[in-house]
Amino acid sequence: MTVRIELPIAHIDSGECCTPATSSVGDDADIDRLTRVFKALGDSTRLKLLLMIAESDPSELCICDLTEPVGLGQPTVSYHMKRLVDAGLVTREKRGKWAYFQLIDGALESAVRVLGLELFQTK
Amino acid sequence: MTVRIELPIAHIDSGECCTPATSSVGDDADIDRLTRVFKALGDSTRLKLLLMIAESDPSELCICDLTEPVGLGQPTVSYHMKRLVDAGLVTREKRGKWAYFQLIDGALESAVRVLGLELFQTK
Repeated sequence: MTVRIELPIAHIDSGECCTPATSSVGDDADIDRLTRVFKALGDSTRLKLLLMIAESDPSELCICDLTEPVGLGQPTVSYHMKRLVDAGLVTREKRGKWAYFQLIDGALESAVRVLGLELFQTK
Repeated sequence: MTVRIELPIAHIDSGECCTPATSSVGDDADIDRLTRVFKALGDSTRLKLLLMIAESDPSELCICDLTEPVGLGQPTVSYHMKRLVDAGLVTREKRGKWAYFQLIDGALESAVRVLGLELFQTK
């Protein structure tokens, strides 16, 4: 199956010079945001947790369903989920006894988009 | 400007059960590969270096052009570039005195694709 998506690529004016300038490499707030997203994703446990949520239908899982598949206790899984929430990749909602986590559609796209990043573009 | 790309989404058979199973969450080699990619990207200096290369035309820069914009010495920049090379995001080629780094087109797409990751898909 192929999914077609569109990534807007911001125009970055690098001028005439062939020497790179830091001013063209996104602003610091954008870099910091994207670094936070990639740091959150750069852990095998968190990737597995995120993928479990992404693959569930609807894309939401209770903390109680997340612990056993990764073989970790609830406090550790809660820590990892907080990193994903803080990175803006999932939302957390408390309902009764349990916390439920839901994937934010297009969160990674959105994070990447702010930089006009061309890593996704085949030249 | 909008660039249209296509991301093939692998079909993952999660069976009838609504409970997530680790077996559906990519295999360990895929998770490890993707973790390495995201770890490499989860550092503001490496992101800036990668973006400088991505924004250059052609997408190649000499190590000698990379040090000044990030305000770091060559050994440190070389270390960061090695992390990006090891993650499969850029190639390194020695020509004469200097090493030149080139972006691997679609490397991040390719890494993400192996998991059939739906983070890029708006449901």
